[in-house]
Amino acid sequence: MQQLESHACFGGTQQVWSHRSDALDCEMKFAIYLPPQVQQGAVPALYWLSGLTCTEQNFIIKAGAQRYAAEYGIALVAPDTSPRGAGVADAEGYDIGLGAGFYVNATQAPWSAHYRMYDYVVDELPALVEGEFAVTSARAISGHSMGGHGALVIALRNPDRYRSVSAFSPIVAPSQVPWGEKAFRQYLGNDREAWKAYDATELVRDGSGDLPLLVDQGEADEFLALQLKPQLLQSACEAAGRPLNLRMQPGYDHSYYFIASFIGEHVAHHAAALKA
Amino acid sequence: MQQLESHACFGGTQQVWSHRSDALDCEMKFAIYLPPQVQQGAVPALYWLSGLTCTEQNFIIKAGAQRYAAEYGIALVAPDTSPRGAGVADAEGYDIGLGAGFYVNATQAPWSAHYRMYDYVVDELPALVEGEFAVTSARAISGHSMGGHGALVIALRNPDRYRSVSAFSPIVAPSQVPWGEKAFRQYLGNDREAWKAYDATELVRDGSGDLPLLVDQGEADEFLALQLKPQLLQSACEAAGRPLNLRMQPGYDHSYYFIASFIGEHVAHHAAALKA
Repeated sequence: MQQLESHACFGGTQQVWSHRSDALDCEMKFAIYLPPQVQQGAVPALYWLSGLTCTEQNFIIKAGAQRYAAEYGIALVAPDTSPRGAGVADAEGYDIGLGAGFYVNATQAPWSAHYRMYDYVVDELPALVEGEFAVTSARAISGHSMGGHGALVIALRNPDRYRSVSAFSPIVAPSQVPWGEKAFRQYLGNDREAWKAYDATELVRDGSGDLPLLVDQGEADEFLALQLKPQLLQSACEAAGRPLNLRMQPGYDHSYYFIASFIGEHVAHHAAALKA
Repeated sequence: MQQLESHACFGGTQQVWSHRSDALDCEMKFAIYLPPQVQQGAVPALYWLSGLTCTEQNFIIKAGAQRYAAEYGIALVAPDTSPRGAGVADAEGYDIGLGAGFYVNATQAPWSAHYRMYDYVVDELPALVEGEFAVTSARAISGHSMGGHGALVIALRNPDRYRSVSAFSPIVAPSQVPWGEKAFRQYLGNDREAWKAYDATELVRDGSGDLPLLVDQGEADEFLALQLKPQLLQSACEAAGRPLNLRMQPGYDHSYYFIASFIGEHVAHHAAALKA
């Protein structure tokens, strides 16, 4: 592990590290915010999964979440959105390849050599963080857009590993929208059965997980109608009789200005679960 | 005036506009955050001047100031840091030319054709903002690094136009440090007498202005010893018998993580003056 950045921030420290990932078979960067409370002992962690084209930088620069993490005594962990580096497959378009890992374990060539973001986020990164920092195994997970999809899927499939989950503007039904269909066809192949394990709406239908779901969605989001379709998750939750707190936010778009406006409420939501 | 961006943010709106500037003789962009309170009537404004290499974007993306502006009912106005566009002079180096206007009215060729950021910030931009938006003439001013220098100089020279001033990591004595000497030599010529009107430490020595000064400075700032030297302002204030609230912040560097950590206190400081 090598420290690339360290900045004092709200009494704690915003750090960026690089390390060799076994799951992804490449060098990876991740960001971690350690709140001032780590001086008194280990703290729980909120994992944040970013959206298409992002790196570990976007959330830490734009969301303003450190203020709330410092207030509640929670670490923030933000990985990159795909494997990186020489030898890692890429393709034309911002929505496939680098910056677009979709938090799956790819089974198809050429992607299967490195694109195992599901294993990286679920297992490898928490083990690393909990081994190297004053961070406990009390975990929460959230994310934006493609990362909102990742957070929902990972929490639904691993309810024992997370205390709470939330999402901003998530791709709730990737099997039914262009971004998801393109990525899943490339990463997972043409058999749609294999897609279900990475589709939050399908997982809800199957009764996976039991964590309460909090989703914020801007009504002026430019991707709402074509790519996000929160009503598909809503219908699945209603049919499965499980609670969903879907908050449609008038006027808000897909940007980090939306995330910044409500991340404080999400951190508070996760803090309540992490400290219960 | 043309609107380039508009994002809902903390119940208000973060906007970016372009307009033709007479002072700078070019097209300019500026950012304005309008808090939710504008729906009830005009609000006072905090003007923010950014540092070297920045545009109107850095502050609005990284500082997290909108939360506090929404809380106190204050508009935030963030101009670019130099004239821009075809025909505007530039030179090698990040510390001269584009992105490095130093908030002066240049008198030397080739800079004098466009580099009149002092007039732009003091007169043209407030007139535009107060004419086009629900913003009053109650003004405060702040900034970072080169922009901290700009805020101090502009407030010291125009105490009737501003209710309050603050700065993060300002270049307090540009005439005595490499960044300032290089810029002033280019923009103002070799006569150091002409530099005094743009040097906060010199202005304090001359008894200019009467606003209380609030300055936050990180002790781990990589530019502290060579370029910022707050002790020069401190000595001048002591000699002139004027109050300076210089807060040295242990561990903080020159980045926006520092600004984000304390911008809430600065907005509160300005709100108290703007609403007095």
